[in-house]
Amino acid sequence: MKIIVDAFGGDNAPVAVLQGASAAVREYGVDILLCGNRQKILDTAREHGIAMDNMDIAHAPEVFDIHEDPTKILKAGADTSLAEGFRRLVMDDGDAFVSAGSTGAMLVGATFIVKRIKGVKRPALGAVLPGETGPVMLIDTGANVECRPEMLAQFAAMGGIYMNKVLKIGSPRVGLLNVGAEDTKGDQLRLDAYKLLSESGLNFVGNVEARDALAGVCDVLAADGFSGNVLLKSTEGAVGMIMKNIKSALTKSMLTKAGALLIKSGLKEMKAKMDYTEYGGAPLLGVCKPVIKAHGSSNAKAIKNAIRQAADFTNTGVIKQIGDIIKNNY
Amino acid sequence: MKIIVDAFGGDNAPVAVLQGASAAVREYGVDILLCGNRQKILDTAREHGIAMDNMDIAHAPEVFDIHEDPTKILKAGADTSLAEGFRRLVMDDGDAFVSAGSTGAMLVGATFIVKRIKGVKRPALGAVLPGETGPVMLIDTGANVECRPEMLAQFAAMGGIYMNKVLKIGSPRVGLLNVGAEDTKGDQLRLDAYKLLSESGLNFVGNVEARDALAGVCDVLAADGFSGNVLLKSTEGAVGMIMKNIKSALTKSMLTKAGALLIKSGLKEMKAKMDYTEYGGAPLLGVCKPVIKAHGSSNAKAIKNAIRQAADFTNTGVIKQIGDIIKNNY
Repeated sequence: MKIIVDAFGGDNAPVAVLQGASAAVREYGVDILLCGNRQKILDTAREHGIAMDNMDIAHAPEVFDIHEDPTKILKAGADTSLAEGFRRLVMDDGDAFVSAGSTGAMLVGATFIVKRIKGVKRPALGAVLPGETGPVMLIDTGANVECRPEMLAQFAAMGGIYMNKVLKIGSPRVGLLNVGAEDTKGDQLRLDAYKLLSESGLNFVGNVEARDALAGVCDVLAADGFSGNVLLKSTEGAVGMIMKNIKSALTKSMLTKAGALLIKSGLKEMKAKMDYTEYGGAPLLGVCKPVIKAHGSSNAKAIKNAIRQAADFTNTGVIKQIGDIIKNNY
Repeated sequence: MKIIVDAFGGDNAPVAVLQGASAAVREYGVDILLCGNRQKILDTAREHGIAMDNMDIAHAPEVFDIHEDPTKILKAGADTSLAEGFRRLVMDDGDAFVSAGSTGAMLVGATFIVKRIKGVKRPALGAVLPGETGPVMLIDTGANVECRPEMLAQFAAMGGIYMNKVLKIGSPRVGLLNVGAEDTKGDQLRLDAYKLLSESGLNFVGNVEARDALAGVCDVLAADGFSGNVLLKSTEGAVGMIMKNIKSALTKSMLTKAGALLIKSGLKEMKAKMDYTEYGGAPLLGVCKPVIKAHGSSNAKAIKNAIRQAADFTNTGVIKQIGDIIKNNY
């Protein structure tokens, strides 16, 4: 198993990427193909004492700027580490591709270089989130800001296959993100998608409100990319704000600082439970090869987990099953 | 100043509503007109020792079920406390109306009984949320699940007037909820709304991502009712989940319980900072009279604050200014 990794994607690249990739080699026995500036990779590894065993380099001189127009990945940005990753994936120089770089450029690269699975209307970005009772996949989280009902039904089907194959959830419960639980709620898109999902053969549990997204009522939550993105980022924002407030509450006085020491183990456990890096990154579902978008702020552990996830994604036949299901049902 | 209050709206009615209304009489010197079953109101007040000074009753035998079709407020539900509230408001038996009942029925009642301000395309529900650096109004939060660009521009204008007049924020900063900060982001609705807002004369600060909604970058955040609802409820859901996890972390062992005692004051301060009840309920902007939708799970304090907010809403000339601005600009 060889995973292609964009060495220069994300806020903490290349150091965190190299550290994470090196840890993945040791822990999971995978081989790695790092894409990026060869000299910079070697210098970074030396400087930080990162073992390069089982890691090859595919040289690409440039880095794709996350503020750049995503479509530039195809021409002007062809000499970036991100573009090189997609090319290597298509050439079968590796089994899967992981990057923490530009989401938009990854979508363009996956759609136009790797290409869609036959019958898939749009690839979608499915984020695996730590829910109250286990992982929940929210799909789409931003790849498609304008959707048709049949796209939402496909997102649900693809997400269900991923959760079943990779996270071993039998008959994943599928929900539809909506403004109310009753089947009469929402706009025309939701009303039509509700009907399609009801008739889809999926284990459809109906509409799910945003406040219950992570409450354990569903394993897959289908959404258009706009509201899925809002859900993902507002949850992130709320968690960040509370954690900041907790920290300031705990360091308020000598007394609270003493208290903080006593509750340390409990807080650690809580943080671990809500750790978004635990399940890796966001799989891009609907394209012909496994592509994982790691979070832009990924640390070494998040990169390592995204690589493990890419290996699981490859091993479990998700893509073949998406092809079969879409061909026969959608 | 007399505030009309639906005595039977919300999960904790009528007890919490009566307690909150009674507290508002004492603390703010307002008069109250309670709508609902007279005998039940009097029994509840007696049973719970709630002072009824300066509180009148407008008898309405029934309660509007929150699961009921909202449009029923107009005919089949005309003998409910909620419908009675709207009728009394139109008859000038009070200056403003507060209910914690069905959001949908309140929208229908406000639109068809109270009626829109001339020129307003759609009334919108603006929630005032506790942000990092002060209150933030998110508008719309669910009244309009399908929107046109000019509606988003009106929501922003109405929200700005409210935040300026009621919460005394000079030149409120207006943001547009979007999936990215760059002006090229989002669907056609967002691109068109961005253009309208840029040319509106409002203090428009551009696109705001959901993770920054409460971070203090804007005072008003304009959204379609679908994604606004997702943002509101996912924030609520995330806060609830974390609070539950904190509680379980703090009660994990003797040690953590001891720690919890020491940090009590810090946590209390944090909870106060994030208390949604502090700013009252959600004003329904764009109709001819002040209407406040209190949260369905409102306790007595939330009802009291919603009544204070209704009084502020009435006193500050928000509705007249919305009429003037809309007439001249939109």
